[in-house]
Amino acid sequence: MTSSTAGEAGTDPTDRVVYDLAPGCTLDDAEEGALYLATVNGVVEYGVFVDLSKHVSGLVHESNLDGEYAVGDELIVELVEIRENGDIGFEDVDLDPDSTDRTAVIPDDDVDIGGLSGRIGETVSVEGDVVQIKQTAGPTILSIRDGTGIVPAAAFEAAGVRAYPEVDLDDVVRVTGTVEAHEGAPQLEVDQLTRFDGAAEREVRASVDAELRARAEPAETEPLIEWPAFETLREDLEDIARRLRTAVLDSRPIRVRHHADGDGMCAALPVQLAVENFIAEVHADPDAPRHLFKRSPSKAPFYEMEDVTRDLNFALEDEERHGQRLPLLFMVDNGSTEEDVPAYRALDQYDVPILVADHHHPDPDAVAPFLEAHANPYLHGEDYRITTGMMCVELARMIDPSITDDLEHVPAVAGLADRSKADAMDEYLDLAAEAGYEKDDLDDIVEALDYAAHWLRYQSGPNLINDALNLDCDDEARHRELVDFLSSRARRDVEEQLADAEPHVEHEQLDNGTHLYRLDVENHARRFTYPAPGKTTGELHDRKVTETGDPVITIGYGPDFAVLRSDGVRLDIPNMVSELQTEIEGAGVSGGGHLVVGSIKFVPGMRESVLEALVEKMEAAELDEELRSTLLRDD
Amino acid sequence: MTSSTAGEAGTDPTDRVVYDLAPGCTLDDAEEGALYLATVNGVVEYGVFVDLSKHVSGLVHESNLDGEYAVGDELIVELVEIRENGDIGFEDVDLDPDSTDRTAVIPDDDVDIGGLSGRIGETVSVEGDVVQIKQTAGPTILSIRDGTGIVPAAAFEAAGVRAYPEVDLDDVVRVTGTVEAHEGAPQLEVDQLTRFDGAAEREVRASVDAELRARAEPAETEPLIEWPAFETLREDLEDIARRLRTAVLDSRPIRVRHHADGDGMCAALPVQLAVENFIAEVHADPDAPRHLFKRSPSKAPFYEMEDVTRDLNFALEDEERHGQRLPLLFMVDNGSTEEDVPAYRALDQYDVPILVADHHHPDPDAVAPFLEAHANPYLHGEDYRITTGMMCVELARMIDPSITDDLEHVPAVAGLADRSKADAMDEYLDLAAEAGYEKDDLDDIVEALDYAAHWLRYQSGPNLINDALNLDCDDEARHRELVDFLSSRARRDVEEQLADAEPHVEHEQLDNGTHLYRLDVENHARRFTYPAPGKTTGELHDRKVTETGDPVITIGYGPDFAVLRSDGVRLDIPNMVSELQTEIEGAGVSGGGHLVVGSIKFVPGMRESVLEALVEKMEAAELDEELRSTLLRDD
Amino acid sequence: MTSSTAGEAGTDPTDRVVYDLAPGCTLDDAEEGALYLATVNGVVEYGVFVDLSKHVSGLVHESNLDGEYAVGDELIVELVEIRENGDIGFEDVDLDPDSTDRTAVIPDDDVDIGGLSGRIGETVSVEGDVVQIKQTAGPTILSIRDGTGIVPAAAFEAAGVRAYPEVDLDDVVRVTGTVEAHEGAPQLEVDQLTRFDGAAEREVRASVDAELRARAEPAETEPLIEWPAFETLREDLEDIARRLRTAVLDSRPIRVRHHADGDGMCAALPVQLAVENFIAEVHADPDAPRHLFKRSPSKAPFYEMEDVTRDLNFALEDEERHGQRLPLLFMVDNGSTEEDVPAYRALDQYDVPILVADHHHPDPDAVAPFLEAHANPYLHGEDYRITTGMMCVELARMIDPSITDDLEHVPAVAGLADRSKADAMDEYLDLAAEAGYEKDDLDDIVEALDYAAHWLRYQSGPNLINDALNLDCDDEARHRELVDFLSSRARRDVEEQLADAEPHVEHEQLDNGTHLYRLDVENHARRFTYPAPGKTTGELHDRKVTETGDPVITIGYGPDFAVLRSDGVRLDIPNMVSELQTEIEGAGVSGGGHLVVGSIKFVPGMRESVLEALVEKMEAAELDEELRSTLLRDD
Repeated sequence: MTSSTAGEAGTDPTDRVVYDLAPGCTLDDAEEGALYLATVNGVVEYGVFVDLSKHVSGLVHESNLDGEYAVGDELIVELVEIRENGDIGFEDVDLDPDSTDRTAVIPDDDVDIGGLSGRIGETVSVEGDVVQIKQTAGPTILSIRDGTGIVPAAAFEAAGVRAYPEVDLDDVVRVTGTVEAHEGAPQLEVDQLTRFDGAAEREVRASVDAELRARAEPAETEPLIEWPAFETLREDLEDIARRLRTAVLDSRPIRVRHHADGDGMCAALPVQLAVENFIAEVHADPDAPRHLFKRSPSKAPFYEMEDVTRDLNFALEDEERHGQRLPLLFMVDNGSTEEDVPAYRALDQYDVPILVADHHHPDPDAVAPFLEAHANPYLHGEDYRITTGMMCVELARMIDPSITDDLEHVPAVAGLADRSKADAMDEYLDLAAEAGYEKDDLDDIVEALDYAAHWLRYQSGPNLINDALNLDCDDEARHRELVDFLSSRARRDVEEQLADAEPHVEHEQLDNGTHLYRLDVENHARRFTYPAPGKTTGELHDRKVTETGDPVITIGYGPDFAVLRSDGVRLDIPNMVSELQTEIEGAGVSGGGHLVVGSIKFVPGMRESVLEALVEKMEAAELDEELRSTLLRDD
Repeated sequence: MTSSTAGEAGTDPTDRVVYDLAPGCTLDDAEEGALYLATVNGVVEYGVFVDLSKHVSGLVHESNLDGEYAVGDELIVELVEIRENGDIGFEDVDLDPDSTDRTAVIPDDDVDIGGLSGRIGETVSVEGDVVQIKQTAGPTILSIRDGTGIVPAAAFEAAGVRAYPEVDLDDVVRVTGTVEAHEGAPQLEVDQLTRFDGAAEREVRASVDAELRARAEPAETEPLIEWPAFETLREDLEDIARRLRTAVLDSRPIRVRHHADGDGMCAALPVQLAVENFIAEVHADPDAPRHLFKRSPSKAPFYEMEDVTRDLNFALEDEERHGQRLPLLFMVDNGSTEEDVPAYRALDQYDVPILVADHHHPDPDAVAPFLEAHANPYLHGEDYRITTGMMCVELARMIDPSITDDLEHVPAVAGLADRSKADAMDEYLDLAAEAGYEKDDLDDIVEALDYAAHWLRYQSGPNLINDALNLDCDDEARHRELVDFLSSRARRDVEEQLADAEPHVEHEQLDNGTHLYRLDVENHARRFTYPAPGKTTGELHDRKVTETGDPVITIGYGPDFAVLRSDGVRLDIPNMVSELQTEIEGAGVSGGGHLVVGSIKFVPGMRESVLEALVEKMEAAELDEELRSTLLRDD
Repeated sequence: MTSSTAGEAGTDPTDRVVYDLAPGCTLDDAEEGALYLATVNGVVEYGVFVDLSKHVSGLVHESNLDGEYAVGDELIVELVEIRENGDIGFEDVDLDPDSTDRTAVIPDDDVDIGGLSGRIGETVSVEGDVVQIKQTAGPTILSIRDGTGIVPAAAFEAAGVRAYPEVDLDDVVRVTGTVEAHEGAPQLEVDQLTRFDGAAEREVRASVDAELRARAEPAETEPLIEWPAFETLREDLEDIARRLRTAVLDSRPIRVRHHADGDGMCAALPVQLAVENFIAEVHADPDAPRHLFKRSPSKAPFYEMEDVTRDLNFALEDEERHGQRLPLLFMVDNGSTEEDVPAYRALDQYDVPILVADHHHPDPDAVAPFLEAHANPYLHGEDYRITTGMMCVELARMIDPSITDDLEHVPAVAGLADRSKADAMDEYLDLAAEAGYEKDDLDDIVEALDYAAHWLRYQSGPNLINDALNLDCDDEARHRELVDFLSSRARRDVEEQLADAEPHVEHEQLDNGTHLYRLDVENHARRFTYPAPGKTTGELHDRKVTETGDPVITIGYGPDFAVLRSDGVRLDIPNMVSELQTEIEGAGVSGGGHLVVGSIKFVPGMRESVLEALVEKMEAAELDEELRSTLLRDD
């Protein structure tokens, strides 16, 4: 609000300000003694009638006229007198309208955008910043935002021609217009749009920002369980919640890329639910949640160049076609490692903000320069046992606390999916039990999620996954039957795969006492079906640990990859990969993962040398009962 | 129609019913002596004016008033008198409007939904059930259906807010509103919407159902040819026709999944044509055929988990976004076997109805629990010689008999595509000849369909396939040229493939006198082009049968599969597969097909053992001149 | 314009023409003494009032009436008198309106379609041909075109019913109606639509055609550089420019299929920019560029059956659903060879016009029957050194000369991408330098394009590619950073690939002195990443040429393919392929390319025989210092 009224400014007669009343201004916005820009709307014998706004007009008597005017001419007048009957007397002032600095007058009836649905048919003025500009075949649609809401404003210059080309995204403007119902939601038909700069801009922006900051503030929630280790992460999660809420308030699309496994889904789905609820609260358009939120599982355990290229391509198209901002990227259960850097660098060219919530071992130095926020237990001396699903359930509640009741079983599912040995698992299991989920139910959900995700390939499939996770699912029976069906199919398929694979597993006892099992997953497992090689290897490993006790290493290998699992051995897979890279010429070794579980790639022609060297390194590893294959990544 | 008029109900003075007239009601709907809910619309010195409906209003004289009322207040009045000049006299009745059970009065001018396009601008009432509910940014759109048609009714509560939240899909309602032309088609702007229950609901539902049952009834058609064996299937096909027509009348989307071969296309395309015609007849929206019918060829000869997951995902999205019902699934030339059960179980969680028309050897016990209807010649002691194309041409005619003339050549094409040795083939060929298609033309169409389907991969490509099949194609010359082009390309590519493959075919004469031919289709055939391995093996087999005479077995094998063809040998492939599963440990054998033709899968590392065991079994098989590779399934 | 006015035609009293005035006609279109079709709109004591058009009406006095008429009846009247006050006198003429040949009268106020946006609200008439017919749920939308523009005309018969079914695409019509603003752009609400035939049709068509021919004419541009060799191609390029502009004026969609490499992108992107600009100029709908232009990179170096089947399928759908014409196909940096003929034959069935701009060695006899235009340096005795990018920059300028300044560096990028040794390269490099691009910058752009194209797979990704090429990119810094990022990633990935591959490269010196290098790209290169086998082989070859000097041959082979590069040896790869086809039985050899660079395919089982025979042929080749691996095609 520029709050100066006309009269105050008009007191200096030598350098007088001329006001240009917005069309919606009334006599309340004007004051005797001030100068105004006026337009002639009638010429009579005894003078000219002039308009200062739609609602402010009157006569300049010929005795007060300096020049000759025709209808449509502009002139500067002094408002001499407002008579009791409301008539206004003006006097012509000898100033050239074109060489005068005008100050737009802000009518006193500025309204909150959030309240426009109650003012259909009225002429109003709003102030705010421009958060989207879309050119249609007809008018230009500018989305105007203040601290209370966002409204589309339709400005028409000519068919398909950009109106107010001087106004850019993020400019602060004042729009006066009629509130119309467009598809049932309020829309402003623009009479006048003024771009602010200088102090007026700063004033409005500060006011809008203050309201938005308040609105972006995450909800103050109590954690689902008391867990001191987790507390160190809360501030980071609040920061992410704030940035996600801010993106929604900024009309900036949010793109979630998440690990396509159980923990990744337990993390991403609650966030989707919470953010979509908040979008629906902020944006009148019921399609807004679909336009402003997109979630995709990632094929690889990092953000691949192919994926980022494709995402960027679509984002640039949406920018061009719909005037959408480039999105904010939120990496979930993924995104902490050096392997993500190429993708981040690509996004950096386009100033796409990036947030990460992950519990994989991070390369903070490599990724930090690209991230606006990064929540990861390793950054606080904790580890993968705090799963991303556990973190993101709290995050989702900070964004929309009303969904808490639906989420109480989700951290337990996430923990079971990633085999978390966190101390807090018992409490999470208790919490789930109170919500009606026994341990067996949760195990079934884990299997069902894994199976559904496999067959969805890399589609997001939110409805099916939500039904399996019993999130935003209004049919308890459907959830139970679906989980029963999917989990029993998953277990049967694993059973069949292992029955075929086990006769071909090679066993050898290493010098350090480790049992080493090797399986050619390309030749002795069914291809292109469930379970995939990573899962097959993991299930085989678990059986062997149970059968033989520690220490056990299992290798599932294909033509150009090997999946590694170990229990009770102090492996350091990232280090092994580095060593192999220097020791074996021309093997193209890459990959890694965690200390005791991971996967590596190589060129097919060097498989034998790589595996042989790998086993040698395993043989040299020390035993350590504490180390377990707890965190799987299927490739 | 609830037929009671007000006066009748008003005769008991101790427990009187109060009527709430719908806005469209006229004086004909009211009666002297009955009680009505009224709203005050004017207060004058001598009384208050009240409205009972848009068209029924009058004065309650102050002498008849019990209380003090303001405009907008509700009260209960007795209709005392209808004067000759049409004026109505009311008396205030001392009842609390809020504690009174009201009965909605049905105006007498209920109209048929099918006739609304002639009543643009009128206020009317319709009764029916709700077949779709879609929330837009503005109004809620409820699709109302009676026995004569379906109309969208727009109800507005607030922008994007669900109007009449108490009304669910399939509820019976009465809607009063103005008929407006929306995009040229009639739409009701809702003034009042009442949900019926109890007797009124039953009455309306019974009336709508009776009309719909009549409308869903399949056309009574004469079969294209007389064929006693086929007669046993007609009743099942009529049942399917009725269910498909009912789905259209229910606004339920229809999803066809069909075998991606010649017979499958000859079956699915006529059904698509007939159903889309019927949709266009029932639904005003010209986009309805596209929204309500979707046909996809299946990659595998059964409904794979990946496909059903994807289909379900899309269906759940359409349900959420467009308020569409979940679809009815119609499996065509597919769907009879145990391999389909996992997909059916997945759909069963969502109560998706399933119909099957197939001529592959069924597992009726396995699939029956999931099917609403199943037409299959084996269920009547007939066999694959009655092809699915032959069945579905009759089915399509039951849905829309007007397309008969376009379909006369299609059963012959279907029969040739599946090499049917049915006695009726001659008659079908004669029928095709009368329609202008010689045997050579039909053979060309078969090749052209196969070639086009290959390059379409698993897109549906209806226009191209229709042109090749000369179905709904208005350009005879285009059809002929296209078939000529596609079939000659197909033959040339087969020729080249076999020229490369034949030098590498291994021949061996088994002890039982069978010629066994083996081809490594991975290493000695072009990859990723036409013809694919199944077709390559089949064509090779046919040549060898011609060259050498019976008995012949041909095996085309790749890394993890083998395609089997045989003539003159009593193979039992499904049984062989079962035996291999138990005899060879860790081979992951699956598959099957028909007795003498099929395909099997195994893990690549066990290929040699599997093929060796397979050949041993073939050597042990008896010869049988009657058995032929007539029914192919390309994998 | 049919220019006859009514009076002239009415001079022959024995065989008088009867005029049927269009609704928009005024008195200026009528003349005393002529006969008109009239409709009774009022019956009074002293006669009947009749309408001849919306604006022409009057009384037929009872003294001048022959029959009895009711409101709505039609009759033929003579216009007897136009009085000074504007009143008109009529006389009933005893002719049966139904048996009279009527001639539509063209009001004198025919307007240009291009000027309709200035006539919102007026009733006007336009003449032109029909370029699109789309049936909506409401009206039928016919797009009418004259020499100045295209306007949609909405004709309503009944909801979803085709209005004016007698009017087909390309018919010449006259439309009278009200100009309304539809989504801001002008649209005609049709009052009357008349199809012309005979002389009237010819006259209008000739007039429209003349204007369109003039408008389709390419701009007269000066070539960017003086280059005599190039001059021979200009006429062909002008022909293509004219045909592309004509397609835009005809509302015919344009489909560009281009080689997915640097030169192909440097060719296709400028054309896209120019054509989209021209579409925006001609069509009011801002979505028109998106609907009428589509560009796709091709996977193979020719138009594959799979691609053409898919493209045709979409085109047939657009025809059916949106009433769009089938597209014009423009093949860019592709399309000259016999391998394209199957696709062309498929399109030929549907009369899709095809244009080609290519610099690969053509098979003119094979492709000519299918092409409307073919620009290729080989057709003029020049060769691949004139790259397609160089040609298409000139082509784009002929379509829209305003983009010249943005394109000055593009021919140099195209030339570097294809390693052109053209004499003109120096001049192109100078031109680029003047525009601010040093040689290093251009090399970086080449690498960046290659890398981006790889990760886009076969999506078109115009925004990303335009930013990399700095075409239509408004952010110079973004361009520079993006190119820097992409090119350095590309170089690093090539470096890593070669570091792994080189230890496994087999070297042998052939008897003719050639160094032969062989690399198993399947087993000794990373798979499914950048660089792909073709690029890997090319980069290896370049290093070996630098290391060893000429002559060098490099073979990168996979299971069923080999990529060939050579310098300083007179290979004739197409000829080698032919020889291998006849010499080695059952090897399925195909492929080819250029004399000294290319690729071949074979069945995997015959790889050893094929490679051995190939090397023998290489050993027999003569050395020739001039021959270089300049033109690459990655497979």
